[in-house]
Amino acid sequence: MESLAQQQRAPGHQNCKNGCNNGAPCCDGDKDHVPGAFKASEITIELTTSPKEKPDPSTLVFGSEFTDHMFIVEWSVKNGWEKPVIKPFQNIPIHPACSALHYAIQLFEGLKAYRGVDGKIRLFRPQMNMDRMSRSAFRMTLPPFDKKELLECIKKLINVEREWVPKSTDASLYIRPIFISTEPSLGVKRPSKAALYVILSPVGAYFQSGAFNPVSLWANPKYVRSWKGGTGDRKVGGNYGNALFAQYEAQDAGCQQVLWLYGEDEQITEVGTMNLFLYWTNENGELELATPPLDGIILPGVTRHSILDLATKWREFKVSERYITMNELLTALKENRVKEMFGSGTACVVCPVGTIQYKDKNLHIPTMENGPKIAARLLKEMVDIQYGRTESSWAIMVDSS
Amino acid sequence: MESLAQQQRAPGHQNCKNGCNNGAPCCDGDKDHVPGAFKASEITIELTTSPKEKPDPSTLVFGSEFTDHMFIVEWSVKNGWEKPVIKPFQNIPIHPACSALHYAIQLFEGLKAYRGVDGKIRLFRPQMNMDRMSRSAFRMTLPPFDKKELLECIKKLINVEREWVPKSTDASLYIRPIFISTEPSLGVKRPSKAALYVILSPVGAYFQSGAFNPVSLWANPKYVRSWKGGTGDRKVGGNYGNALFAQYEAQDAGCQQVLWLYGEDEQITEVGTMNLFLYWTNENGELELATPPLDGIILPGVTRHSILDLATKWREFKVSERYITMNELLTALKENRVKEMFGSGTACVVCPVGTIQYKDKNLHIPTMENGPKIAARLLKEMVDIQYGRTESSWAIMVDSS
Repeated sequence: MESLAQQQRAPGHQNCKNGCNNGAPCCDGDKDHVPGAFKASEITIELTTSPKEKPDPSTLVFGSEFTDHMFIVEWSVKNGWEKPVIKPFQNIPIHPACSALHYAIQLFEGLKAYRGVDGKIRLFRPQMNMDRMSRSAFRMTLPPFDKKELLECIKKLINVEREWVPKSTDASLYIRPIFISTEPSLGVKRPSKAALYVILSPVGAYFQSGAFNPVSLWANPKYVRSWKGGTGDRKVGGNYGNALFAQYEAQDAGCQQVLWLYGEDEQITEVGTMNLFLYWTNENGELELATPPLDGIILPGVTRHSILDLATKWREFKVSERYITMNELLTALKENRVKEMFGSGTACVVCPVGTIQYKDKNLHIPTMENGPKIAARLLKEMVDIQYGRTESSWAIMVDSS
Repeated sequence: MESLAQQQRAPGHQNCKNGCNNGAPCCDGDKDHVPGAFKASEITIELTTSPKEKPDPSTLVFGSEFTDHMFIVEWSVKNGWEKPVIKPFQNIPIHPACSALHYAIQLFEGLKAYRGVDGKIRLFRPQMNMDRMSRSAFRMTLPPFDKKELLECIKKLINVEREWVPKSTDASLYIRPIFISTEPSLGVKRPSKAALYVILSPVGAYFQSGAFNPVSLWANPKYVRSWKGGTGDRKVGGNYGNALFAQYEAQDAGCQQVLWLYGEDEQITEVGTMNLFLYWTNENGELELATPPLDGIILPGVTRHSILDLATKWREFKVSERYITMNELLTALKENRVKEMFGSGTACVVCPVGTIQYKDKNLHIPTMENGPKIAARLLKEMVDIQYGRTESSWAIMVDSS
C-alpha cells in the first residue's frame, strides 16, 4: 500500500527494485503504461505560416538555431495531462514565481535524428532517453508520463520537421525534450503544474573534416560535479548550472574541459558533460576498456551504454564498469600502460583526451598515438548504425506516416 | 593581471581573499561599485490600471499571492545592463531554449519588509542578501551588479507597493529577487543574456497565534543536500530542486522536514531549507550555542549570522561555529545535555525541533520543555528590531521619498 504522499507524487511509479542507484528512488522501468497520460494519437498540429530558411549545416553553432515548430503538453494536479500540441516555435509565457526558475525543478534529455544513406530518418536507442527522462521526472517530483507515447509524439514532431533533418552524414537534428515545473508559487514543494516540451535544432559535424581533435582536461578536486545522495545520475538542470563555474576555471588554466574527480581517492568520473572511458593494460596486465560504474554519481549515458554493449560483443578484451583513481592513472601512465582515454556523449559520440593538467603536472595521454584505434572503431560502428550503413535494432525508424 | 576569461566572466570580481569558502570562488565583498551596472535613479515606473484587492494576511499561504507590480532589469553581453523598470506584475516570455530552464543557471534571494509599530517600513540587514546574491551570481557565471543600486531599486518597488506591506506585526511583505540566464541556446555555457527581477508577496504569521510548533525531522544519510566542491553555500535553484525528493520521503516516514547529514561521521548540517542551531552542554561541560561552520556546504543565512551576533553580545554562554555529528548528538541526548535545537531562516526566524527519526530510533529533543528559552529570546529580539520596537542599525528604513 503506497502512502498518500507516494500516490500523489508519482502514480505509476515505485522505488526501484533493481538497485540501480544504491537504493535511491527510481522509476519502475518495466511500467510503460501510465493511466491518464497524454497520447500521441490525440496530438493537434498547428503549422506555421512563416517557415524559416533551412541553414547550411556546415555553419551551425550547436543548439543556436531551431526548427519551425515545437511540441508541448501541459499537466496540472487538477486536470492531469492536457492534449499534446505541435505548434509554431515560440516563447513560453512563464509566471515570475515559476518554481523551475526559482528551484530548478526541471530536467531535460538530448538525442538526435539522423538522415541515413537511404534518405530515411532514424533515432538511436531513443527508448533509453525516455527511460532516463522518466527517472529524472520521478526524482524531480514531476508527474509520470507514458514513455512510448512521448516517443511517438517526438516522431510526429520530426515528421512535421523532416525537411530540417540535414541531408548529410556529418550533420543531424538534435532533439531536446525538456520537462519543467510551472508551479506559480514560492513554496519549495512538488509542483501542481508542469509542462513538457520538445524543441529541435539542426547541428553540424562535431569534428570538422572528420579529424579527431583531442581535448585537454583540468583535473582539480576543488570542484565536485555530483556526490552520493545527490542527483548526478539524473539529467536535471542543477547538475549543469552548478558545474558551470569549473568549466571557466579550467579554461583560465588553459584547458578545454573539466575532468571531474570524486572522493578522497580522487576517482576519475566524467569529462565535462560526457562519460569517461579508459582503454589500457590494467594493474593485472589485462587489456581492459573501463568506465566508472553507475553508483549514483555517474550519468547513465546512452552512448556509454552502447560502447559497453559493442565492446562486450567484440570479445577482444576485458570490458569493465570499475573505479579508476588518479593514482592508478598516474602509475599506468608511468608504466606506459595507457592506450586511449576518451569521453562519450550524444554530441560527439567519442571525444579523445590528449592531456590532463593535474596539480603541477601536465600529463600526456597517448590517445592519438594509439590511433585512437578503439575510439575510432566505436565511432564508426555507431555512426554506421545511425546513418543506416549497418542494420541494427538500435536504429528506430521515424516513418512519415 | 586577470585572464580574458576572468574579465569576461565577472568584471569587478575576483577570487575571495577572505577564505570564506575554502578558496572557492567568491565575489569581492568590498567592491560595491560595478562599472556600467544599472542604477536606481534611472528606473522607469509603469503603474497598473487594475490594482488587485489586498488579501487578509491571516488567510495567506506562503508565496502564492503577489502584489500589483514587479521590478525587472535585463542584461546582455552586447549591450550590458538595460535601464531598470517597475511594471505591472505579469508573465515573462521565455525562449524555449533558455538556459535557466535547461541548466538551472539561476539564483534567488529572500528577505522581508516589515511595517513597524510606528507605521514605518523596515528591511532587516538587506545588505547581507545583496552580498550573498552577488556571490551566487559570480558562481553561476551571471554578470555582476551594483549591490547598493539593487537595494535602492527594491526600496523603490516597496514604496510603489507600500499599501501591500501588511499592517500587522504578525505579517510581512516577502521580497523575492531572482536572477536568471535568458541565454536562448543549448550550449552549456556562460549566458550572453540575463534578467534580474524582484517580486513581492504578502505573507502571514509563520506560527499561528504566536505559539511555537516544534517540527519532526527525518535524519537519513540516503540523501545529501550539498557537498564540498559544490554550491551549497550559494542560494541557487539547483540546491532546492535537487533536494526536494528527500522532503517527500521524510513525509512518507511521518516527519515534517529533512535533517541533512554530511560525511562518514554524519555531521548535522541544515534542517529543510533552514540553518541549524544546538543549545546544549557540550562535551567539555560548557554551555554552548553551536551551528555548523561556513565550510562551503552551509548556506550563510542572514538569520544564522544575526543569531550568532546576538548570542555573542549576550556573553552568557559559549557561541561556536563547529561540527556536530549524529553520534555527539546521541551521546548528549543520553546524558541529558541537549537543551534546545532549532532551525533558523527568514520565514520563521527560529523553528524549534521536537523529534528526530534516525535509523530505528525516534529521538525526543527537549526543546519545548526548555522553554524554548534561547529560541524564544532570539525570536523576540529579532522581531522587536524588525517591527521597530527596538532601535537597531540592522533595521533599514524604506522611506517613501
